[in-house]
Amino acid sequence: MNLPVFFLENPTQTTHLSDEDSHHASKVLRMGVGSEFYLLDGNGTKYVSKIIKIEGKKVYFKELQVVENLPENPQKLHLWIAPTKQMERMEWMVEKCTEMGIKSIGFFVSKNSERKEIKLNRLDKIIVSALKQSKQLYKTQLSEILSFKNLITQLNSEKSVKAFAYISNENISSLAEIAKQKSETHILIGPEGDFSMEEIETLKQNKYEPFSLGKSILRSETAGLICTAAFAIQKGDLKA
Amino acid sequence: MNLPVFFLENPTQTTHLSDEDSHHASKVLRMGVGSEFYLLDGNGTKYVSKIIKIEGKKVYFKELQVVENLPENPQKLHLWIAPTKQMERMEWMVEKCTEMGIKSIGFFVSKNSERKEIKLNRLDKIIVSALKQSKQLYKTQLSEILSFKNLITQLNSEKSVKAFAYISNENISSLAEIAKQKSETHILIGPEGDFSMEEIETLKQNKYEPFSLGKSILRSETAGLICTAAFAIQKGDLKA
Repeated sequence: MNLPVFFLENPTQTTHLSDEDSHHASKVLRMGVGSEFYLLDGNGTKYVSKIIKIEGKKVYFKELQVVENLPENPQKLHLWIAPTKQMERMEWMVEKCTEMGIKSIGFFVSKNSERKEIKLNRLDKIIVSALKQSKQLYKTQLSEILSFKNLITQLNSEKSVKAFAYISNENISSLAEIAKQKSETHILIGPEGDFSMEEIETLKQNKYEPFSLGKSILRSETAGLICTAAFAIQKGDLKA
Repeated sequence: MNLPVFFLENPTQTTHLSDEDSHHASKVLRMGVGSEFYLLDGNGTKYVSKIIKIEGKKVYFKELQVVENLPENPQKLHLWIAPTKQMERMEWMVEKCTEMGIKSIGFFVSKNSERKEIKLNRLDKIIVSALKQSKQLYKTQLSEILSFKNLITQLNSEKSVKAFAYISNENISSLAEIAKQKSETHILIGPEGDFSMEEIETLKQNKYEPFSLGKSILRSETAGLICTAAFAIQKGDLKA
């Protein structure tokens, strides 16, 4: 069935759609009482339900029925990126990475970063919209911007693969090799001016694996995109 | 050496940079006589040269010296896409696909296409800019928009792999399998409303191989991006 798709966090604890989806359902799609729709909770479950009441600006729905459930998030990639100066580039990347099914996106401030803050609110809206569009069961997680130092400290407690994109003439792993990992993987993409020498030393000391994105000089957001694509292609969720 | 990078088609037949690069060199970068730069011809050769004269709006250069030459384009992917309604989405995709090193991008009008024309001029500027930024030796080729029928006719004479992205429950190839091809490969991405039934029949009759982009519903431009990423990753040019 090709029904409209909405999103609601913890949908079993409420009886109506979000303000945005209520508006979209009743005003844009002109759905009425009895109209069916899918509801994603972004946490592994897809429901079907129907509208039972439209009151004020709220669209109320009937008891939810589970149509799909995935107990574990199949996505393993966590992308950490030093945000680009132009926020639009990050927004576009977040949309595309969400469509391709990334587990989480976080930001950090590096020595050469031009942008030191980020508004998560707008990015979260982009993620919800891309989630509904691509109909994925798990919502991409966003996290607050961290200093490089705090990011390293935070990831030190994680038992997972850690790697960073690195421009080098040394013989290092390729992206394809990194993407073969089956465990949770944290990938760091440096700022437009690249990581500083000290940061690279810190990464190496903390057992982050350098990997190459090849000879072409990719923009930061393109590096983020290609890493996400590599995991999506490799783990075969692109296979029907 | 980290020199500025310029682009010029057939640079051995002239003695000065393009108007745009002349302006960029002399006004933005404030380069003077004696300053060195790289020059890409987009056809496999990278030169080094230096400024010998700035006259009016033109920057003249010294005899070119070849620093890198790749006799054959290693890129094998030709992407054909029904352009999205929002041109901005195509522009973004063209930039990213160029950075990742696609051989050519063409457009076609499908039965369900909302957009039936395209301005190549602006896309060509984006390609030149992405070429200079990513420092690739071959320039992505663009071609005029074709009708679906003319595209099929044109590709009929090509001895190459042909495939199209297909949403289906049938057991079809994955993108990873298609990207393993070593020969020239033409990939078709349908419009936002997908190919029509007749178009799909025509594709199958003409031995285009359907392949899956998986369960997630990707936007057209994301489908184009992930196909390009798959070829870039697969063919290992992302390996240093």
